[in-house]
Amino acid sequence: MKVSELSRRTGVQVPLIKHYLREGMLPPGRATASNQADYGEDHVHRLRFIRTLIATRGLSAGATKEILDAITAEQEDLHQVFGIVLGVRAAKQEEDAVTEQPSSEPEPERAGLADTRELIAEMGWDVSRGNPAAHTLAEVLAALADLGADIDWRALLPYARLADSIADVDMQQMHGERDLLAQAERAVLVSILLEPALLALRRLAQESKSSRHFGGDSDGGPDDTNST
Amino acid sequence: MKVSELSRRTGVQVPLIKHYLREGMLPPGRATASNQADYGEDHVHRLRFIRTLIATRGLSAGATKEILDAITAEQEDLHQVFGIVLGVRAAKQEEDAVTEQPSSEPEPERAGLADTRELIAEMGWDVSRGNPAAHTLAEVLAALADLGADIDWRALLPYARLADSIADVDMQQMHGERDLLAQAERAVLVSILLEPALLALRRLAQESKSSRHFGGDSDGGPDDTNST
Repeated sequence: MKVSELSRRTGVQVPLIKHYLREGMLPPGRATASNQADYGEDHVHRLRFIRTLIATRGLSAGATKEILDAITAEQEDLHQVFGIVLGVRAAKQEEDAVTEQPSSEPEPERAGLADTRELIAEMGWDVSRGNPAAHTLAEVLAALADLGADIDWRALLPYARLADSIADVDMQQMHGERDLLAQAERAVLVSILLEPALLALRRLAQESKSSRHFGGDSDGGPDDTNST
Repeated sequence: MKVSELSRRTGVQVPLIKHYLREGMLPPGRATASNQADYGEDHVHRLRFIRTLIATRGLSAGATKEILDAITAEQEDLHQVFGIVLGVRAAKQEEDAVTEQPSSEPEPERAGLADTRELIAEMGWDVSRGNPAAHTLAEVLAALADLGADIDWRALLPYARLADSIADVDMQQMHGERDLLAQAERAVLVSILLEPALLALRRLAQESKSSRHFGGDSDGGPDDTNST
């Protein structure tokens, strides 16, 4: 198909398609004339994938390109692909490039990291030191301590166990893809695209449960619910 | 304490404290002289809370002010507080102000919403039509359909059940606070501040499980793990 048809099929404007082609985010089409190319279903698929990462997940074009480049170039097995998607490999390379030296992290962040490592050990998780999620968790734990909240790493264990079960469901979603590139795309989709869906599901469940646990019968109550 | 001491205790710069005071995000201190005021532990606590929402959760100062205003002004019961925190009440007011009219949403978004309502019904959740999380979920479902992924609302049911269990843990975290303002702050903390922690826990579990399910023995493997 021509680029105009590709645009119509995907809803992505022609100038933006040309930009993705120049950036290498979209592989070139098959040249049919000096200034024309033919595009196929793979292009439709890839464009939709790019648009989804940017629109739904709010990734920048740069971050999207990095993920696409990495999964295209480095896929050796699905575990490596997950490492790329989760940002573990990038962090590892950075770590390798820097000589180990006494940490200059501020105090609370360091305390948060120690707690995070205890939680990871308690869960028996096999996790790289460079996994950026460990730092995110450390930040939240440090913020909770700073606020004087009585939620420490032990209080997060019930959440960690449920997260473990979620990851089991995630792994089941990975079966059945035909080739490693398709699997890599699916890993991105399951890992990254489902994140806002999971938070949304929790917020829906929270509203429902808070109504049952704490609901008065003031306005904003059951009069405006979906239940049938 | 003086404002300089308040700044030292919280790590928030004096000009920024004065800005929060002007904006009403921080209640005024007790005036001790025409141009001086005395601040207490409540101010320390509130400032840390503001800083946490902005720094850890990436909320804008405007969004933080809205949440603080709303929980301070409107708290009647904890269910209402959750409604405010989850953005349900704001959405409801908007909805009330607009006459019901045929939807002008684009087609895939509408399909996503229908699927979302099916999932909510299947879960037996009691959810307001205005809960913004329903729209988030609809967007993700529409994006998945658009990508041709075989993940529809039924495939999300295992996630929905785990989200339901997470919300149970959330509700347990709400017990024991002394007054409604303290509970409101805790609702913000549990609902909003724990979101990045939950995603981080899932990513840690994903790395661990992907290593067991798909790991080769190429580099990036167990040589650089935490496990002891």
